[in-house]
Amino acid sequence: MTDLSPILAKADANLNASLERLFDLVRIPSISTDPAYKADCRKAAEWLVKALTDLGFTASVRDTPGHPMVVAHHDADRADAPHVLFYGHYDVQPVDPLELWENDPFAPAIKELEGGRKIITGRGTSDDKGQLLTFLEACRAYKDVKGSLPVKITILFEGEEESGSPSLKPFLEANAAELKAEYALVCDTSMWDTETPAIAATLRGLVGEEITVHAADRDLHSGLFGGAAANPIHILTTALAGLRDETGRITLPGFYDGVEETPENIKASWATLGRDAKSFLGEVGLSEPSGEKGRSVLELTWARPTCEVNGIWGGYTGEGFKTVIAAKASAKISFRLVGEQDPAKIRDSFRAYIRSKIPADCSVEFHEHGGSPAIQLAYDSPVLTKAKAALSDEWPKAAVVVGMGGSIPIVGDFQTYLGMDSLLVGYGLIDDRIHSPNEKYDLQSFHKGIRSWIRILDAL
Amino acid sequence: MTDLSPILAKADANLNASLERLFDLVRIPSISTDPAYKADCRKAAEWLVKALTDLGFTASVRDTPGHPMVVAHHDADRADAPHVLFYGHYDVQPVDPLELWENDPFAPAIKELEGGRKIITGRGTSDDKGQLLTFLEACRAYKDVKGSLPVKITILFEGEEESGSPSLKPFLEANAAELKAEYALVCDTSMWDTETPAIAATLRGLVGEEITVHAADRDLHSGLFGGAAANPIHILTTALAGLRDETGRITLPGFYDGVEETPENIKASWATLGRDAKSFLGEVGLSEPSGEKGRSVLELTWARPTCEVNGIWGGYTGEGFKTVIAAKASAKISFRLVGEQDPAKIRDSFRAYIRSKIPADCSVEFHEHGGSPAIQLAYDSPVLTKAKAALSDEWPKAAVVVGMGGSIPIVGDFQTYLGMDSLLVGYGLIDDRIHSPNEKYDLQSFHKGIRSWIRILDAL
Repeated sequence: MTDLSPILAKADANLNASLERLFDLVRIPSISTDPAYKADCRKAAEWLVKALTDLGFTASVRDTPGHPMVVAHHDADRADAPHVLFYGHYDVQPVDPLELWENDPFAPAIKELEGGRKIITGRGTSDDKGQLLTFLEACRAYKDVKGSLPVKITILFEGEEESGSPSLKPFLEANAAELKAEYALVCDTSMWDTETPAIAATLRGLVGEEITVHAADRDLHSGLFGGAAANPIHILTTALAGLRDETGRITLPGFYDGVEETPENIKASWATLGRDAKSFLGEVGLSEPSGEKGRSVLELTWARPTCEVNGIWGGYTGEGFKTVIAAKASAKISFRLVGEQDPAKIRDSFRAYIRSKIPADCSVEFHEHGGSPAIQLAYDSPVLTKAKAALSDEWPKAAVVVGMGGSIPIVGDFQTYLGMDSLLVGYGLIDDRIHSPNEKYDLQSFHKGIRSWIRILDAL
Repeated sequence: MTDLSPILAKADANLNASLERLFDLVRIPSISTDPAYKADCRKAAEWLVKALTDLGFTASVRDTPGHPMVVAHHDADRADAPHVLFYGHYDVQPVDPLELWENDPFAPAIKELEGGRKIITGRGTSDDKGQLLTFLEACRAYKDVKGSLPVKITILFEGEEESGSPSLKPFLEANAAELKAEYALVCDTSMWDTETPAIAATLRGLVGEEITVHAADRDLHSGLFGGAAANPIHILTTALAGLRDETGRITLPGFYDGVEETPENIKASWATLGRDAKSFLGEVGLSEPSGEKGRSVLELTWARPTCEVNGIWGGYTGEGFKTVIAAKASAKISFRLVGEQDPAKIRDSFRAYIRSKIPADCSVEFHEHGGSPAIQLAYDSPVLTKAKAALSDEWPKAAVVVGMGGSIPIVGDFQTYLGMDSLLVGYGLIDDRIHSPNEKYDLQSFHKGIRSWIRILDAL
C-alpha cells in the first residue's frame, strides 16, 4: 500500500491550477448538437490531447464522421499492473434559454452560496468536463509525486454523448484491440448525497415493443355495431391488464428466468439510505409503491424487472364525444430487465402472450423498439470492493453500491464491443442542473473527486 | 274498414304530379349547416307551408333562432279519431365533393338503372324530402277521394336536423301544448330490404363518460421510477378490462336492472332475416360476435346493452419510443342501454367501480358526455300491430319490427318534452347514399311509400 498523503497533498496544492485548467476547457463551447459549434468541439478535443500529452500520455485526436474522439495511452509503473479504460465526454448540452442563466455559461467562475458552499458555474462543469478532469488531475498529482502511474491507462473521450453517440459503436468496433482493457472507469454519474459517494453496479436492461391490434377494416358506429363487433381497445386493454397480477408480478411465462434476489447485505445498505417510499415517491406527488409487493422502492427501481405501458392510443381522443368503435388501437410497452434476463426470450414470450389474446377475426402487428440486457457488476467483485473502500476513505460516509433504473448506453457498448465491465463512479450531485440553465459542479465534487481517483488508482 | 282501392288508385294517378312536387322541393338547396343557404332553408319552409295550405292544413312558418320550423294542423273526419304528430325535416346535407355527383344534386331526375329499377336522383330525395312528401301525398290522395282525413294530424317539419337540431328542444318545450298528440309518426328511416318494410320499435339509449386517471404530478422516466411509481395507463387499462367478463357480460353492479329478454316470437322473426354474424360482420372484415355469448348479432345490436371504449390515450404516442411513465391517462367510454335501464344509476355504478380501482395516491376525474334512456315501443302495442299489418298489405313481404342500435334524438325528445311514443316508418334503402354524393330515392320507395301511408292512416 502506497503512502498516499504526499500525493493527496499535491492534489490539494494543485487545486487552483486544476481549476484554471477546468475553466479553460469550460470556456470552449463544445455543443455537439449544433453544427455552428463544430470547430469548438474539435478545439476541445485538441485541448484534451495537449493536456494528456503534457501528462505523458500518447494522445491523439481521432476523426469520425461526426465529432472527433480523443484516445490516449499511458503505461503503468510495472508490467503486471491492471489495465483500465477511462471514459468521459467533452461535448456539452446547448444552453437555451440563455436568459435563465445567472452567469455566462461559458465564463466559468467560483461562486459561494449561503452557508459557505462553493460551486463552479458553467455549462459542462458537471456534465462532463469537471468530472473527466478529476481523473486527469488525479493522474497529474500521482505523476508529480511518483513519476509514474500505478495502472496502465487507456483514455477515451467522446464528443457526441449529448447527441446520441452516432460514431461510438463503429469506433469501438474498429478500434477494439486498441481500446480493450480489463474494465472501464466511467465518470459521468452522481454521488448519493453530498457526503456519500456512490458506485453504480447494476443498470437495468430494456425491451421496447409497440403493438397495434386491428379489428374491423374501418371505424364503426358503436350504435350500429356495438355489442357484436370486436373493439380493439377492449382487446388491447384486456391484454395489457393481464401482464401484471395482483401482487405486481409480471405474468409472462419465463419472465423471471435469470432474476436473482439481491443479497441481504446490499439490501441492508440500501435500507440505511433513508430513501423510503415516502421520500422517493413524495417528490413526484405519489406515496405508495405500485410494483411488486413487499419490496422497497430502491429494490423495485434498481434490482427488479418491470413492465410499463409507456403510451396507448386508439379511437376518438379529441374534444367531445364520438360513438365510434375504432378499427385499431396501439400501445408502446417496455420491460426493464435485471440480472440475466434475456431480451429476446422476453420479447418472444410477450408476443406469444399478446397473440393468445387476439380473437380469430382480429390481428396484431408488432414493432420492435430496441432491446438490451441488464448490466450487473457482481456485488462481491474485487474491483467494486476496492473502489468502495477507496471512496469510503475519502468521504465522510461510506460509499454505497447503487443500481440505476435506466440504461447508460456506453456501459452496454463496452460490454458488447470490448467485452468489458464498467465501474461507474462520479461526483455529480442531484442539484447540478445538468442539461438545464445554471449548471454547476460543487468545488468539493471537483476537489474530493480528484482525491478519490488518486485513492482508487492506488487501490486498483 | 274503408275500401282503400279508390284512394290507392288516386295515389297512382297522382304519381307524376307528386313527383313534380318532389322535384320542386329538391330544387331548393336547403343546406342547413352552411349560412350561405339560409334563405334557401326559409324558402323550403315556405314551400311546405304553401303545400300544406293547399292540402287544407292550417300551416305556418315558425321562426327560431336558427332555421324556421313548419307547423300545421288538420282535423279528422270524426271527433274520436286518433291524433298523430308527423315529423320530418326539410334541410339537407352539404353536397361536397360536388365533382363526385353524376347528376346535379339540385336538378332532380328519374334515372333507370340496369334491370329496370328506377331511382330519383338528387340531394334530399331520400333524406328527408322524398320521405316526408310520401306522407303529404298520401294525405292528398285520401282527401281527393274522401274529402277528409281519418286521423287528426299535426305536422312538424324541422330545418336543422342535419346540423344538430339546436332549436328543437326549446321549440318543443315552448309549444308542447300545441304539438302534443297521442303518438308521433317519424319518417326518416329505412326498409329492411327492397321488399320488406320495417318499423323501428327499439332504440338503444346512451351513457357517455370520459375519465382521466392522474398519478404522479409530472411525466416520469420509466427507468428511474418504473416498478415503484403508479402508472396511470396500467390503472386505466386494468379498470377498463374489468368492465366485461369472459362471457361478454358487463360486470357493473346493477347494470342489467331493467333489461328484459326479447320475446321469442320477435327473436324468431329476426332469425328469418338472414342477417347472421357472417353477413353482418363480414361487411366490415370481421366474423365473430364479440359481445355476450349465445346471442345473435341482431339481438346484440338491437336488444342488448353494451359497454364500449370509444377512445383511449395516454403517455407517448408519437414516432419511436419514449420511456415515460405518464402523469395521466384518459378514455372515453359509452354504454348503450335497452329496456328500462336508468342512465343515472349506470353512470353512478360506473363511477363507483372506477373509483374502487384507483390507488390511494392517485385520483380520477369524470366528465359526463350525455345520457338518455332507451326507447322501447311495446312489441304488442296496438299502433305497432296496426302499422305492421298495413305495411304488410302493401309490400311483397311482411313488415318486420326491428331495433336500432343507435339513438335518434328526435324520438327521445318527443318522449321527454311531449310524453309521446314514436312510430318509425320509412322507405329509404341502405344504398340511398344519404349524406354522400349521388343520393337517390327509389321511385318504388316514393310510390309505395305514399300507398303505405294511405294504408297506415286508415288502419290507425
